Amino acid sequence: MKLVADTVRKGQIEPRITLIGAGPGDPELLTIKGMKALASADVVLYDALVNEALLNYAPQAAVKVFIGKPSDDETFSQDAVNKLIVDYAMNYGHVVRLKSGDPFFFARGYEEIDFAESYSIPSEIIPGISSATGAPSLQKIPMLHKGLSESFWAVSGSSENGKLSADLLKAAASDATVVVLNGITRVAEIAEVFRRNGKNRLPVAVIENGSTPHERIVVGVVDTIAELIEEKRIGAPALLVFGAVVSLHPQFQPIRDFYELIAQEGAY
Amino acid sequence: MKLVADTVRKGQIEPRITLIGAGPGDPELLTIKGMKALASADVVLYDALVNEALLNYAPQAAVKVFIGKPSDDETFSQDAVNKLIVDYAMNYGHVVRLKSGDPFFFARGYEEIDFAESYSIPSEIIPGISSATGAPSLQKIPMLHKGLSESFWAVSGSSENGKLSADLLKAAASDATVVVLNGITRVAEIAEVFRRNGKNRLPVAVIENGSTPHERIVVGVVDTIAELIEEKRIGAPALLVFGAVVSLHPQFQPIRDFYELIAQEGAY
Repeated sequence: MKLVADTVRKGQIEPRITLIGAGPGDPELLTIKGMKALASADVVLYDALVNEALLNYAPQAAVKVFIGKPSDDETFSQDAVNKLIVDYAMNYGHVVRLKSGDPFFFARGYEEIDFAESYSIPSEIIPGISSATGAPSLQKIPMLHKGLSESFWAVSGSSENGKLSADLLKAAASDATVVVLNGITRVAEIAEVFRRNGKNRLPVAVIENGSTPHERIVVGVVDTIAELIEEKRIGAPALLVFGAVVSLHPQFQPIRDFYELIAQEGAY
Repeated sequence: MKLVADTVRKGQIEPRITLIGAGPGDPELLTIKGMKALASADVVLYDALVNEALLNYAPQAAVKVFIGKPSDDETFSQDAVNKLIVDYAMNYGHVVRLKSGDPFFFARGYEEIDFAESYSIPSEIIPGISSATGAPSLQKIPMLHKGLSESFWAVSGSSENGKLSADLLKAAASDATVVVLNGITRVAEIAEVFRRNGKNRLPVAVIENGSTPHERIVVGVVDTIAELIEEKRIGAPALLVFGAVVSLHPQFQPIRDFYELIAQEGAY
């Protein structure tokens, strides 16, 4: 904490931290409260997936620091980010930490706040729209629907030990709508888990860059989704949605027709 | 659709619908995009849980219609709401449908859009923050945390046939952080399901009126939560959060101390 000494000459500084969920990507999906908090920022620390247009809500004089994506060990480790937040708060005052989605949903906001509180720095949270709920919503795919799904299960497709989460194995066996975050690079492996549960024809949607001008969606079934994604060159950031509710998306209609045709042919 | 005939004399009307997620309760947790869409509303149809302060973003001349909470069969049925939306769009133009939380997460936005599209009325979705993620976030309870939880499962506590959802029974047996919406009136029954899975001491938080000035939280364990809620007179709207992540909330510390004391006494 080499910068701590500098605070001595800055007697008026009142360190505080606001963790803001920046939402799924569209800068207008930031909350009004988030916009107002940015206006009083002395420093803004932002992630790789945060739209830089949001920085315009902060004062021109505020320090803007890009810190990449800690979870991927790019640019900064989570420990380094925790320390940066405290350093900046002590030396500049109000640090706004802009995280994509919601800071306490599939992000490590808790660790950042916990570290700051160990230095007695007060913190406030302003929730954001997680891409897990926001991206399907924009595609008009409901997470629950009468006769199709009674619950929503969100799991991370990435893991620290390289294995898929045990929860993902259970989710694939459940009747819930299953949303997988950070799972696009392992989609073949994840689809295989659903296949082992006999869900070869379960509808799947993959939403790339949800809520942005670059948004794309691919709709298929468990058996075809990995191939479709390769064919359409879908990459991160992307969300996987497994569930019967995906059948309500207009792009599913030709798939349904195809399987109905096959079923009819099989009957003769 | 008795009002359809009226449209003949209103040639300039261009019916369209914007479904907006109003967020968990705090009017400042509306998105910037939602705020802008409200400004061009000719009609606003809003739910019981939507903060009426949001109506100030709509033009003064816009028609504001309170339609209660269709899911509870209060005021209007879902069918009646679907028809109202179409009627107003045809007769007034831009209908903004303000729903609490997110319109496609635990709400029946799909049915409203689907009905409107059967009349060829175009629709747009503006996602919102679901209380399922926003309320725990504001309480600094992370949904995932290393060593505590690898996933998030959201289930409704209400049902059409009076039984708990089969998904809730499975969720109680899982390692996911389980969030139950609309379950406060059946908390004893729901806690019993977790108890049957041997989770008597699993931490539980109940968040009432999350994100509003009336927000209250009660923290306990499966064995004590129903009694605590009765004692504190917690009522709807409230969210139940079952999971080890709740142990990170400051109010859980005395509970941990209590059980550790009991464990020590048992050892002698």
